[in-house]
Amino acid sequence: MTLTLQQLNAASQDEATALLDGTYEHSAWIAHAAMAQRPFTTLAALKYAMAQVVAQASREQQLGLIRAHPELAGKAMVSQSLTAESTHEQSKAGLTNCSAEEFAKLQKLNADYNAKFGWPFILAVRGPRGLGLTRQQIIATFERRLHGHPDFELVECLRNIHRIAEIRLNDKFATQPDLGSELWDWHESLSAHSDPGFKENGQLTVTYMTDAHKACAQEIAARMRECGFDSVEIDVLGNVVGCYESDSASRSIHAVEMPKTLEKSAKKSLLTGSHYDTVRNGGKYDGRLGFFTPMMCVRELHKTGRRLPFGIEVVAFSEEEGQRYKATFLASGALTGHFNPAWLEQADSDGILMKNMLFAGTESAQDAMNKIAFLKRDPTNYLGFVEVHIEQGPVLNAMNLPLGVVTSINGSVRYLGEIIGQASHAGTTPMATRRDAAAALAELSVYMESRAAKDGDSVATIGMLNVPNGSINVVPGKCSFSLDLRAPTDAQRDALVNDVIAQLKSICERRAVSYTLEETMRVAAAPSDAAWQARWTKAVQATGLPIFTMPSGAGHDAMKLHEIMPQAMLFVRGENSGISHNPLESTTQDDMQLGIDAFMQLLNNLAQEKDQ
Amino acid sequence: MTLTLQQLNAASQDEATALLDGTYEHSAWIAHAAMAQRPFTTLAALKYAMAQVVAQASREQQLGLIRAHPELAGKAMVSQSLTAESTHEQSKAGLTNCSAEEFAKLQKLNADYNAKFGWPFILAVRGPRGLGLTRQQIIATFERRLHGHPDFELVECLRNIHRIAEIRLNDKFATQPDLGSELWDWHESLSAHSDPGFKENGQLTVTYMTDAHKACAQEIAARMRECGFDSVEIDVLGNVVGCYESDSASRSIHAVEMPKTLEKSAKKSLLTGSHYDTVRNGGKYDGRLGFFTPMMCVRELHKTGRRLPFGIEVVAFSEEEGQRYKATFLASGALTGHFNPAWLEQADSDGILMKNMLFAGTESAQDAMNKIAFLKRDPTNYLGFVEVHIEQGPVLNAMNLPLGVVTSINGSVRYLGEIIGQASHAGTTPMATRRDAAAALAELSVYMESRAAKDGDSVATIGMLNVPNGSINVVPGKCSFSLDLRAPTDAQRDALVNDVIAQLKSICERRAVSYTLEETMRVAAAPSDAAWQARWTKAVQATGLPIFTMPSGAGHDAMKLHEIMPQAMLFVRGENSGISHNPLESTTQDDMQLGIDAFMQLLNNLAQEKDQ
Repeated sequence: MTLTLQQLNAASQDEATALLDGTYEHSAWIAHAAMAQRPFTTLAALKYAMAQVVAQASREQQLGLIRAHPELAGKAMVSQSLTAESTHEQSKAGLTNCSAEEFAKLQKLNADYNAKFGWPFILAVRGPRGLGLTRQQIIATFERRLHGHPDFELVECLRNIHRIAEIRLNDKFATQPDLGSELWDWHESLSAHSDPGFKENGQLTVTYMTDAHKACAQEIAARMRECGFDSVEIDVLGNVVGCYESDSASRSIHAVEMPKTLEKSAKKSLLTGSHYDTVRNGGKYDGRLGFFTPMMCVRELHKTGRRLPFGIEVVAFSEEEGQRYKATFLASGALTGHFNPAWLEQADSDGILMKNMLFAGTESAQDAMNKIAFLKRDPTNYLGFVEVHIEQGPVLNAMNLPLGVVTSINGSVRYLGEIIGQASHAGTTPMATRRDAAAALAELSVYMESRAAKDGDSVATIGMLNVPNGSINVVPGKCSFSLDLRAPTDAQRDALVNDVIAQLKSICERRAVSYTLEETMRVAAAPSDAAWQARWTKAVQATGLPIFTMPSGAGHDAMKLHEIMPQAMLFVRGENSGISHNPLESTTQDDMQLGIDAFMQLLNNLAQEKDQ
Repeated sequence: MTLTLQQLNAASQDEATALLDGTYEHSAWIAHAAMAQRPFTTLAALKYAMAQVVAQASREQQLGLIRAHPELAGKAMVSQSLTAESTHEQSKAGLTNCSAEEFAKLQKLNADYNAKFGWPFILAVRGPRGLGLTRQQIIATFERRLHGHPDFELVECLRNIHRIAEIRLNDKFATQPDLGSELWDWHESLSAHSDPGFKENGQLTVTYMTDAHKACAQEIAARMRECGFDSVEIDVLGNVVGCYESDSASRSIHAVEMPKTLEKSAKKSLLTGSHYDTVRNGGKYDGRLGFFTPMMCVRELHKTGRRLPFGIEVVAFSEEEGQRYKATFLASGALTGHFNPAWLEQADSDGILMKNMLFAGTESAQDAMNKIAFLKRDPTNYLGFVEVHIEQGPVLNAMNLPLGVVTSINGSVRYLGEIIGQASHAGTTPMATRRDAAAALAELSVYMESRAAKDGDSVATIGMLNVPNGSINVVPGKCSFSLDLRAPTDAQRDALVNDVIAQLKSICERRAVSYTLEETMRVAAAPSDAAWQARWTKAVQATGLPIFTMPSGAGHDAMKLHEIMPQAMLFVRGENSGISHNPLESTTQDDMQLGIDAFMQLLNNLAQEKDQ
C-alpha cells in the first residue's frame, strides 16, 4: 500500500507513527516525535524533521538507535531481531552471497569495530544511487571507518541510518528520485574518461585538453543535443556551450551578429554552468553537477516543448582547477574578457606551450587572441549567472540538510612564512631564555583559531608547518609555515589578516624572534547578488527544506563571472563529510533530485517574474 | 704603574673610580657605582660587580656605553674620540693592517649594522685568548651577528664590552691568567686532531677509535706524563687514565693487586675527568675541560713536589657522545661495571663490529669481556667523582658569571609522537568542525611552555615538528612531533611528564583527534651529592664570585659514575650564549683560570678535611 503525505498529515500522531513503522529500525520514537511537526508539504521536509529528532536526542537514545541495527552479514541476519527491510537491503547489496573469505573478513571487521566503538558498524548498503554497494565497496568503507574517531563515527552511523530511512521512505511513498538517479548516472558515465596512468587504477583525472578531456567535451556536447538544446558548440578553449532559446529570439553570444531590428525584441539569457576538468585523483561531482543539473532542466522543458521568457545558456567550462597551466579561471576568464595573452606562452610540465596546445602553432598570436576575444560575453545580454556546486565541505552533511544557499564566495589571502629564532640545546636552555621558533608559531596558531572563530564564518589555516632539520634535543631555531585566511567579504578578510599579522609581529617581538612573510595569493570575495540569492532561497523553500545560508570557502567559476554580472550559487550536500578533490567525494540520487527541483523552481519563478 | 686591590679598596670612591679610568670606554659611571661594593677580595669579584652595574643600568645608559665605542676599523680610529686602549686593541687584532678589500667590507658591515641596530658593532677583538682575533675571524663574527635579534645583540655587545674591560683590568692589575691561557692552548693543540673529511674544512670531529681519536689519546697521555702523573695508561676502551699518588700509597685501580698488609693504610683517591671524543663539527671544550683542568692542578702540585692525603685519578673518557655506536656512556660505563656485552656485536655505519674494532678479532668474546670487566672500579677505593664541564647553555653567559655549581644532572624522557586528525579543505571547513592535527599540537606546545616554566628549572621541548605533505589549503590531518622533558629530580620530571601527557589526552579528546606516543629514552636524574656540592660551593667562594647553583640540562659522564659513588659537577661559562656541539663553542683564558683556581681550592680544602 502506498502512503501519501496527505494521509500522513491527516492521521492522529499515533496512527501516523504507525504508518511510518520500520523507517528507523525498532525506533518508533523518532517518527512519533517528528509527527508533532506536521503538516509536511514534501517528503524532503519529513526526512529532515526525522533526522532533526535524532540529532536532538540524547547520546543514549542515539546509541540505542544504532544498536537496534544488526551487524553487517552478521549472525543476526537469521535471527528474530532483523527486520524484513534489513534483510532485503543486505541481500540487495549481495551480502547474502559473500565468499567464505569475505564473510570471515566482515566478521573480523565487525568484532574490531565493536571492540573499538562499542556499537555495530552502520552502513547504508544500498548506497548513494540506491542500487546497492558492491561487497568490495562495503569492505573498503568498513576498513576506512574503523580508523575514525568515535565522535565522528557516531554521527556517521546516524547519517547512514538517515540514508537507510530515506530509501525506505521513498519506497513507502512510492516516490523515486528518477531525475536525480539519471543525473547520477550521467556523472558516472562522464567519469569513464580519465587520463592515462590514472584510468588504469580506477582514478579520475581529467587534465585540460588531454584525450580524456576532449572525450568529456564530446560526451557533454552529445548529451546537450539529446537534451534538446538549440545550439551546442565546443569553443576554441574547450568550453562546451549549449543554448536553449527563449520563447522569442534571445540575445545570446551570437547577438552581436543579430540584425539591429531584431535586437530590441530579443530577450536576455540566464547564464549557468561549471567546470568539467578535475584535479588529480579527484571526485566525480566537483564542477560537473553545475552543468548537468541545468541540462536536465532543459531536457524536461524540451520534452514538453516548453520555452521560457528568457534563454538558457549552459556552459561546461573546460578549465578551473589550474592543474596544467598556472592560469586561474582561464575558461570562465575568456567569457569575462580577462584571458591574459601571456598565458599562451606558458609551458606545462612537459614543456608544451599553451598556444601550441590550443592552436597547434598554426595561428599567429593575434589571430589566436582574436579567437579567444570572440568568446567574451556582453553582460547586457544576460540576466545573471547561477551555479550549482557540490559543497566540498562538511557543513550540510553535518546538518542533515541537502541544499544550502550561498551568500558569498570567500575572499582569501595566502602567505608563506618563516620564523627565525635561535636553535639551542633542549636540555640546557631554560624556558625563560629560549627563542623557540616553533613555540612562537604555536602561539600564533592558537590565536588564529580563536580569532577566525570569533567572526563565525572566517577561516584561518596553517596547512604547512615544519621545523627544518629538527632534532629531538634541539630547541627549534626555524619554523616554516603557510597561512590561508578567508572571509565572505574583503573587509572582513582584511581585518582578519591585519589582526593575525599584528599578533605575529607582537609574538615575535616578545619572544625576540624574527619572521618573514610572503603573500602568494590574494583573491577578492564575490558576495552573492541579493536578488539572485533571494531567487535561490525561494526555490529551495519550494522543496520544503529549511533555508540555510552559508559562504563558499572554495573558489568557483561564479567568482569570475561575478566581475561582469550578478551571480549566486546553490550548494548540494556532499557525503563523507563533504570531502572533495578525493575519490570519496559523493552525493546521493535524492540530493541531486532536490538540486534539479530547486533549479527548475528557480526557472519557473523567473519565468513568472518576466511574465509579470 | 701597577694597581693593587688593596689600593683600590683603600681609596675614596672618586679616587678609586679614577684608578679604574679607561676600563669602560668613556663611562666612568660604571666604576663609580661599582666602588660602592668594595672591598673586593679578588679581581674576579671586581669584574663581576662592574658587569652587574651595567646589567642593572637603564637601556639608555647601556646604549650610551655601546655608542661610546668607536667603529671597528672605522674613521674614528684616527679621531679624538678613540682611547689609547681602543687603538692598541684594534691594532693588536691587525685591524690597522687591513687590505683595501677587507677595509671596504668592514665599512659596509659597519654601515649595515648601524642601520639595522642603531649602534656600533662591538667585539672584544683580543678574543678569548687575549692575543687578538684574526681579521677573518672578526669579519666572520661581524657577518654572523648582523643577522641577530636586536635584543640579543644589545646584550652581546655589553658582554663584549665586559671582555674588553676584563683584559684591560688584567693589564691594569698586572695579573695575567697564565694557567688559564696555557689550558686554552692545550685545548687548541688537541683540536688539531680531527677525522678525515672534517679536518680539511677546519672542522673538529673526533669519532670513537678513529686515527684522530687515537692521536688524541696519545697526546693526552704524553701531556699527563709531562704533568708528572705517577702512572699513565690507555686502557682497552681508549680511556686515558693518569694517577697521581697520595702522600702515602693510595688505593687506586691497582689496589685489587695490593698486598693485604698495605691495603688498610692505603688512602682513597679522588676520581675526576670527562670525555675527549666529539660530535660531528663540534666544539673544542666539550668534555676536554674536564680532564685538562685537573691535569693542570696535578702539574702545579707536582712542580712543587706536593702530595695530598688522597690520590688523584684523572680519566679522559674515550666515548660519551654516542656518535659511532648506540652504546650510551660506554667508556664511563666500563668503570661502573655497566658495559653491556651486547654492545660488542653492534655495527657502526660502515658495518664494523665494535668487537672487531676494539680487539681486531683476536680475542674470544669472553676474553674481551674479561679485559673490559677489569676496568671496573671498586667504589670503596674512591672518595667520589667530580667533573668540570663547559656549561653548554646560556645561563652563566647571560649572568656575566664565570662559574656555576651543579645541583643535579637532569632526568629526562623523550617521546616521538603523532597526532591524527582529519585532513579537510581549508576554505570550506568551518573552524568549529575542524579536526586539525597541527592546531592540537600547537595548543600542547603553549601548555608545555607554561607548565615547564612553572617549575622554574624544568624544560620541555618540541624539537621535531612536521605536517607531512602539508598543503597551503588543506587543514592538517597529521602532525608528527617529538617531546623532550627534563627536570632535576625524577619525581619532578615524572610530574611534568604526567601533566603534559594528560593535557595531550584532554586536548585530543576535546578536538576529536587521536594521538600516538612512543617513549624513546628515559634517563634517571643524578642529583649532586650534598657534601661534594658543598665542596664546590666553598671552592667557588674562594674565587670571590657569588655562588650560583643550577641543574645540568645535558647528560655527562658524572651521570654514569653517580651509579656507584657520590658526584658533583662544576660548570664553566661558555661564550656565544653557551652554544655547544658547534664550532662556535668557546670559553676564555680567564674563565679557565677561575676553573683551575676552583679545582685547586677544592683539592686544598679536601686535603685540610683529610688532615683534620
